[in-house]
Amino acid sequence: MTTGVRRRMGVEERRQQLIGVALDLFSRRSPEEVSIDEIASAAGISRPLVYHYFPGKLSLYEAALKRASDDLAGRFVEPREGPLGARLLRVMRRFFDFVDDHGPGFSALMRGGPAVGSSTTNALIDSVRQAAYVQILAHLGVEKPPARLELVIRSWISLAESTALIWLDGRRIPRGELEAQLVRDFAALAAVSAAYDAEMADVLRRAFENEPTEGPFTDLAVRLISLATPPAP
Amino acid sequence: MTTGVRRRMGVEERRQQLIGVALDLFSRRSPEEVSIDEIASAAGISRPLVYHYFPGKLSLYEAALKRASDDLAGRFVEPREGPLGARLLRVMRRFFDFVDDHGPGFSALMRGGPAVGSSTTNALIDSVRQAAYVQILAHLGVEKPPARLELVIRSWISLAESTALIWLDGRRIPRGELEAQLVRDFAALAAVSAAYDAEMADVLRRAFENEPTEGPFTDLAVRLISLATPPAP
Repeated sequence: MTTGVRRRMGVEERRQQLIGVALDLFSRRSPEEVSIDEIASAAGISRPLVYHYFPGKLSLYEAALKRASDDLAGRFVEPREGPLGARLLRVMRRFFDFVDDHGPGFSALMRGGPAVGSSTTNALIDSVRQAAYVQILAHLGVEKPPARLELVIRSWISLAESTALIWLDGRRIPRGELEAQLVRDFAALAAVSAAYDAEMADVLRRAFENEPTEGPFTDLAVRLISLATPPAP
Repeated sequence: MTTGVRRRMGVEERRQQLIGVALDLFSRRSPEEVSIDEIASAAGISRPLVYHYFPGKLSLYEAALKRASDDLAGRFVEPREGPLGARLLRVMRRFFDFVDDHGPGFSALMRGGPAVGSSTTNALIDSVRQAAYVQILAHLGVEKPPARLELVIRSWISLAESTALIWLDGRRIPRGELEAQLVRDFAALAAVSAAYDAEMADVLRRAFENEPTEGPFTDLAVRLISLATPPAP
């Protein structure tokens, strides 16, 4: 029995090692460019042995994606202390760290296509989006979000994804600028909704009542007002 | 020779009829729920005859999607007259008309998955996004967009897509409100970028210099300022 337990542990360890090797390769290139032979070689085992642990490339890809999804969802967790803007900025930094580390694989996944578009991969993407949504609601202190708040949060999450994808395509804008911009974008989209809806205005007033008056949102507001003011002739 | 020409016309007409029938069915349900039998029956022809024109369901799906993509891209075309905000609002109305007409098919396509994620379908989605991007640049009067403007436009396009998808999921917010909100979101995202970048500020000042002072952007600005002002005690 002891041997049996050891043997099963060994199997799980080998699986975890293979997932790590695969994730590293799938992060650096799109999945169709990564072969089982290459994964076997990087793991230092034979191709048939890889198939002993995973029936095929798709199942190994999905296991690697599961690990990456758990990793990313974990980066959204942030102590509920201090100003909201500063918290979101820290999360954005960790999000861009992740995107930076997994660039080509992240692009291939999010741009979709036959190599990555299984129902399992879509469910994993959705689980990460849901984790982000749940965290934001918790930080805003809202338990039953009105439909307009849900829309603002979920559509901003998709804005963050597309901003990261566009950044990866050439990296023409410093990522630190985009991290700060996404925090401001969240405030702007929430404010646009609140400008026309009393319930949203209430939610935002409560969420932001403890923001420092010297914080990034005040800076943004001052700059927007100056932008809207025509320059002196 | 005349007979030959007629015969080829007949084939093309039949193909176009089948595409129309398929698009109607693929718009109302997700592709995996639509069978070739059903398409044949709706077109009033036999199943083998459908296969005579299209090798399989995927090719018929892709042909239907091509027609829908051309239709949607066409709706982005708007005369370059009058205020920018009013132009964009008219485009948003036509976009939501399209989404309303093709709801389940649009959701299935944009949420991805094995039934729809071919390289052809992805290329068609990208071509529609590109058409939207080109139109917006033209209306802004910008020929060589700086990287930050490209980012704002492309990420706003993805915001418009996700807003439409969230709307389709329950239709809990009136679509007219979301059409107007997306116009304001565009202005807000552009302004957030311009607040920290002189080149973007220049582009926007030039683009918006002919906006009416009584237009939707002024209304938004007034409301935002009132939102930021604490209520009287």
